[in-house]
Amino acid sequence: MRESPAYDPQNIFAKILRGELPCFKVYEDDRALAFLDIMPRCPGHTLVIPKAPARNILDIAPDDLAYVATIAQKIAKAGKDAFAADGVTVQQFNESAGGQVVFHLHIHVIPRHEGVAMKPAASVKEDMAVLAQHADRLKAALAR
Amino acid sequence: MRESPAYDPQNIFAKILRGELPCFKVYEDDRALAFLDIMPRCPGHTLVIPKAPARNILDIAPDDLAYVATIAQKIAKAGKDAFAADGVTVQQFNESAGGQVVFHLHIHVIPRHEGVAMKPAASVKEDMAVLAQHADRLKAALAR
Repeated sequence: MRESPAYDPQNIFAKILRGELPCFKVYEDDRALAFLDIMPRCPGHTLVIPKAPARNILDIAPDDLAYVATIAQKIAKAGKDAFAADGVTVQQFNESAGGQVVFHLHIHVIPRHEGVAMKPAASVKEDMAVLAQHADRLKAALAR
Repeated sequence: MRESPAYDPQNIFAKILRGELPCFKVYEDDRALAFLDIMPRCPGHTLVIPKAPARNILDIAPDDLAYVATIAQKIAKAGKDAFAADGVTVQQFNESAGGQVVFHLHIHVIPRHEGVAMKPAASVKEDMAVLAQHADRLKAALAR
């Protein structure tokens, strides 16, 4: 069993939270941020993260995890609406053995359509104009 | 966009909750139940479900979702401990397009080891004696 290292404040999502890197923001409040995965597995693929520093499910405060789960639900409903999706796939990876690549807890929320497979993880970077438009669609759905 | 049907009280997890079908129970309280997937993608693959009737993330009460997320966290930590895992993969599927097969909300919590791929979903039924032993290992880890 590999022990988890401590939280690294230089991970890219920490930089996004500090405004040091840009993102296609979908939702933000005082405890959570949601933004588009720039290598979406399907259109509308969104990442929901806590603002509190947490590496993954193994170290996050239970109350923070509970909170981001409710935001993931908001995003799931908005994604189904915004992309006229048939379903939603939710994934959350912990440590590299569990599929984690960026070590700030994040929940993947992926709108799905019947018969359309997800692209492999982190395989194709989406066009920036498309991402901007998709973020707008999600924000509009959240506002409804 | 396909609309979600209503909750079906005859789904197999509802039958497990009513005691009409058996399960390899790992954890239970007044709001949640956790039990082994009998076709585990990796040893220790556990399903966490709310006791409240909910089809998936699209209809569950936010408070119930928040609660089962905290139980999924307990199971993730116990699974890492019980199986000396390197990581944990968490998945939650919504509607058939999203990968859902049983229509009572469930969170898959899957202990992972570096370099060991998950089996395909629902591919191989595990031996009952092995499942009983794995449930005991998880219960022991939860009690620590």
